[in-house]
Amino acid sequence: MTSAEGTRVSRRKLFGLAGAGVALAGAGAAAGIGIDKATGSAEAAVNTVEFEGEHQAGIVTPAQANLHFAALDVTTKDREKLRQLLKTWTDAARRMTAGQEVVPNGAVGSGDYAPPGDTGEALDLPASHLTLTIGFGPSLFDGRFGLAGKRPPQLIDLPLFPKDKLDPARGGGDLCIQACADDPQVAVHAVRNLVRLGFGVTEVRWSQLGFGRSSSTSRAQQTPRNLFGFKDGTNNIKSEDTDFLRDQVWATAADGQAWMAGGSYLVARRIRMHIETWDRETLDGQQRIVGRTKGTGAPLGQTAEFDELDLDVGGAGGEKVIAEDAHVRLASHQALNGVRILRRGYNFVDGSDGVGHLEAGLFFLAFNRDTRKQYVPMQQALSAKDAMMEYVQHTGSAHFAVPPGVSKTGYWGDGLFA
Amino acid sequence: MTSAEGTRVSRRKLFGLAGAGVALAGAGAAAGIGIDKATGSAEAAVNTVEFEGEHQAGIVTPAQANLHFAALDVTTKDREKLRQLLKTWTDAARRMTAGQEVVPNGAVGSGDYAPPGDTGEALDLPASHLTLTIGFGPSLFDGRFGLAGKRPPQLIDLPLFPKDKLDPARGGGDLCIQACADDPQVAVHAVRNLVRLGFGVTEVRWSQLGFGRSSSTSRAQQTPRNLFGFKDGTNNIKSEDTDFLRDQVWATAADGQAWMAGGSYLVARRIRMHIETWDRETLDGQQRIVGRTKGTGAPLGQTAEFDELDLDVGGAGGEKVIAEDAHVRLASHQALNGVRILRRGYNFVDGSDGVGHLEAGLFFLAFNRDTRKQYVPMQQALSAKDAMMEYVQHTGSAHFAVPPGVSKTGYWGDGLFA
Repeated sequence: MTSAEGTRVSRRKLFGLAGAGVALAGAGAAAGIGIDKATGSAEAAVNTVEFEGEHQAGIVTPAQANLHFAALDVTTKDREKLRQLLKTWTDAARRMTAGQEVVPNGAVGSGDYAPPGDTGEALDLPASHLTLTIGFGPSLFDGRFGLAGKRPPQLIDLPLFPKDKLDPARGGGDLCIQACADDPQVAVHAVRNLVRLGFGVTEVRWSQLGFGRSSSTSRAQQTPRNLFGFKDGTNNIKSEDTDFLRDQVWATAADGQAWMAGGSYLVARRIRMHIETWDRETLDGQQRIVGRTKGTGAPLGQTAEFDELDLDVGGAGGEKVIAEDAHVRLASHQALNGVRILRRGYNFVDGSDGVGHLEAGLFFLAFNRDTRKQYVPMQQALSAKDAMMEYVQHTGSAHFAVPPGVSKTGYWGDGLFA
Repeated sequence: MTSAEGTRVSRRKLFGLAGAGVALAGAGAAAGIGIDKATGSAEAAVNTVEFEGEHQAGIVTPAQANLHFAALDVTTKDREKLRQLLKTWTDAARRMTAGQEVVPNGAVGSGDYAPPGDTGEALDLPASHLTLTIGFGPSLFDGRFGLAGKRPPQLIDLPLFPKDKLDPARGGGDLCIQACADDPQVAVHAVRNLVRLGFGVTEVRWSQLGFGRSSSTSRAQQTPRNLFGFKDGTNNIKSEDTDFLRDQVWATAADGQAWMAGGSYLVARRIRMHIETWDRETLDGQQRIVGRTKGTGAPLGQTAEFDELDLDVGGAGGEKVIAEDAHVRLASHQALNGVRILRRGYNFVDGSDGVGHLEAGLFFLAFNRDTRKQYVPMQQALSAKDAMMEYVQHTGSAHFAVPPGVSKTGYWGDGLFA
């Protein structure tokens, strides 16, 4: 150990206090300032989201700007190893969401002759509102772990929808980790360290980075735009909509599996958007397909973004202003017997497609109480009739049961393994 | 056009003034507030980087947090079309870097029956310190455009280095666009709109997103960490190093091609990092490979990050503290006869590799005055001897001549086409 390390402080904590935007003239300036990382709930309150609670964080939490999502397969058949990993993950998540290293003094203090307990790339970064949310895929309940009797009826194998072009390498998974943060490096660090802790028990099946959250989940946020340039998620269920959350997002014990009470069901769909084709469509055409104006986001026939959608407004010639195949009509609760979902997706660009285009789109994430009654009928309507389907292609699909939040002494999925 | 659009204001400008962090309770609240987008150098000064100048922005500009890099091929053989596109791109870049739409009122005001002149996804976002930097690949000088005689001698076809595993789909390109911004959506929007303007003249060959800038380019920035968890680029040439910039970054007319005076040469290397293997290495091993301590970033044998590297410090048993195959030794100006480069790379995670790992690494970008004398000998030393090579793999490679900055009335590459 060098002398410099002897005086090392928790720079991560220090910078967390200073704020992400503060540039320091040489990190060496921090040396010698002692902050005890073991104390300090005051530090922990800076840019952090509470980890424990009735529900997992990362669902109604105001959507952070960046996402790293990973689906994993369990490579052992040892139920106890899986259970232990979930405990280990919970401990690590508690610490990382508080802006701490995976283990105390993890990156540089775990002994020179052992691999570091934290990979280190987030050392200088604040907590960045990191949330970590996990889910269990249908395949986890296939019998390997004695969980077949615990599979919730809502956790269906998603049907193949019309026009799906699913890549198996971008779908499924025994487990998922959703990491959201203000800083992509913090989200990547969190997933990478959970994956590292899972060596020998799990491995990455697929992963997806996203940016520019494609829906807001709080009325305090402005509605973001997707890569079609339109505001997206105006009518999303938001954290303030407590009635909708109760009725349409949170599972209850009466829904079939008591261990899922307070949990939810997460649908993940990788939607490639053919942005080059879209960009050649006229403004009028784009607006007809979406059913909203591009500038304000107002429903066609209305004047402001949050004006209520009126599907019956007539236009010139007696045709409806919002077309029968407009996206907003088919996805609306008015057309779906009141069904709503909580969307939490992100935009993505994954390089290029090899034939001259950007590989861009929307990584759709939605939480609902019963996928059979909410996401599935919605997507059936969209995939069969939505005019937008000409410009998009669903290339990845996965479904997860997201267990409830953990108590101060609990761990992710403790109810499932009880 | 709906009535809402009649009162539409430049929300992008408005939000730019309000600051990126300000959440507005419903964008509808902005309606009715008139800000003239045609005026307002005051607005333009918020979160913007000057586009014009002796050198292109995006080289010594303090590195922004996010990158979208695209390499393009020219699909026409018409020199004039290419020249016109560069003029069109310059106009668009002037506007976008000022926080404006590609064309005035582009996303929603270009007439309902024409494709929008701006794709719209950055409408509500501030300029976010966007910089756009372009370069010309060796293949642009192959004779299709009458430019063979203008090829700078420094713009070599890069040699194959030991251990390169290059994917042709991730290398080369007639042109490149480097977009850097505080917000990934702003960088993606900029590249996407330049690509769109190039329909029929260029198409995307490959593109790469990056985050967490892997080097700082100003002493006002703290040194960031790469995905090995180490501070990276401590000894980078920075914007304050005017002598190094003059000697080692900026091309002059005397270098061989007068049109390149004030320009530079950009090497782009996609470096896959085997982070899972790295994570199993001991702290001591990691530090020996890098030649620096993980915590402070101090060179081994020194105490603080910016302490000068001393390659001759002896350790126990007479061995040098900084090993003969340590990365920092081989890449140092001390070992390379004073050669330095200006690095401006970014970390990346591109999903997973299909065999259980994250597809993660460093998208290395470096500017130098003469790639033959700077990057090539440096990479030859590294690829042959660097202990780190066991953990990395170069999977993409490209080289570009980055022309000088443009004047108020000029356009990108005007000297080349004069």
